[in-house]
Amino acid sequence: MQLFYANQIIASSAFLDENESGHCIRVLRKKKGDEIKFTDGKGKYYVGIITQDNPRQCILNIVGKGEELFKHNYNLHIAIAPTKNIDRFEWFVEKSVEIGVDSITPVLCHYSERKKLRADRLEKIIISAMKQSIKAHLPLLNPLTSYKEFVSGVFPDCGKYIAHLEETERKELIRISPGPSNYIVLIGPEGDFHIDEIKLAFKNDYQAVSLGNSRLRTETAGIAVCQIISDLESLRSSR
Amino acid sequence: MQLFYANQIIASSAFLDENESGHCIRVLRKKKGDEIKFTDGKGKYYVGIITQDNPRQCILNIVGKGEELFKHNYNLHIAIAPTKNIDRFEWFVEKSVEIGVDSITPVLCHYSERKKLRADRLEKIIISAMKQSIKAHLPLLNPLTSYKEFVSGVFPDCGKYIAHLEETERKELIRISPGPSNYIVLIGPEGDFHIDEIKLAFKNDYQAVSLGNSRLRTETAGIAVCQIISDLESLRSSR
Repeated sequence: MQLFYANQIIASSAFLDENESGHCIRVLRKKKGDEIKFTDGKGKYYVGIITQDNPRQCILNIVGKGEELFKHNYNLHIAIAPTKNIDRFEWFVEKSVEIGVDSITPVLCHYSERKKLRADRLEKIIISAMKQSIKAHLPLLNPLTSYKEFVSGVFPDCGKYIAHLEETERKELIRISPGPSNYIVLIGPEGDFHIDEIKLAFKNDYQAVSLGNSRLRTETAGIAVCQIISDLESLRSSR
Repeated sequence: MQLFYANQIIASSAFLDENESGHCIRVLRKKKGDEIKFTDGKGKYYVGIITQDNPRQCILNIVGKGEELFKHNYNLHIAIAPTKNIDRFEWFVEKSVEIGVDSITPVLCHYSERKKLRADRLEKIIISAMKQSIKAHLPLLNPLTSYKEFVSGVFPDCGKYIAHLEETERKELIRISPGPSNYIVLIGPEGDFHIDEIKLAFKNDYQAVSLGNSRLRTETAGIAVCQIISDLESLRSSR
């Protein structure tokens, strides 16, 4: 199934952005009158007929609603330090969207080597991975935020976790006690969190967790968190 | 911690291969008399003194044994169709070694678009990921094998699973019934398995499993399997 993403819907008209329009019209050679399936990225899923086949702005007339697509019944927010090598971070973004993530906040930590990000590139990867895995919810990409600011933020009714690498008491994430199905997980840069950052997380009610017994790279830790939370929720719903 | 890999140990001498020697001597500028830590890839872990700092063959005198490194207490064998885009397959290899896999068999399926692999490149990735994640067990890379041949193979005392995408009854891998901690998981190519391949798997006692509710790319499915089995085993050991 080929799924498109419309970033704007006004009454019964839906609009694809330049990137999606180009893909639909230029690459896949769709024409006026063709029927396509698309999502609004907010959980809804439609059938539309192309009324304007402009490769820079494709417009659709909504003719029907598609069936509801699967949405996982939890909320996962990952705050992660972008890796020095941007490919690795982009892989994390693609894979986390495929497996399941709701929000990503890139955070700037004490040991962060990368201090800049191109949000537009990451947005494209998120849209593409959402379509690829036939999801109708577009995960939110937040701006690059300082660690201190993020960790002091107020997130009501959330289980808050920090996956640091210090050899202290940490509970495995897959074995945490039942709580709200709202998760925030912090993942540090290549050099891990600074000890003061870990203390600041504890002060803000974050619990230390491990992701199993392997030492994982930053981007691998991010992907592992998505799968662990999916597993955890799957097991809880089956009880 | 910096860990090296010696592919040959004779009495109290250990030998690094050309790649490892270059990394140790040329890149990290280690010299005769320096002490390094290394593994034999078979679970043992040593301390050695460099006796020959040749960047093409570094030789070490073993002066001590390191502490035992963590080894997961299960066996996971993934048989997976290499992806058309080799980068994606190489990512799977790297990430699966980081998270935990014991054997990888690339399989040639009906819908496989890639029919060749460079084993030497993959071996390098496996060694590098093993060192990176401070493991002392080198996962085994088997040669590219035809699907039929693999699936008809005899693997005693193994839980055998096929992660196909057909909309039929499939149990979630995280929710399978307890069995031996020896897993074989089959993962198909971009176009999924051919229906006859799925039937052949059933005939050979493979059970259909899903990896959660998302549609995953081949390489993501491979990574997900590693994390799911790790989660499953972690939960079992804690009961």
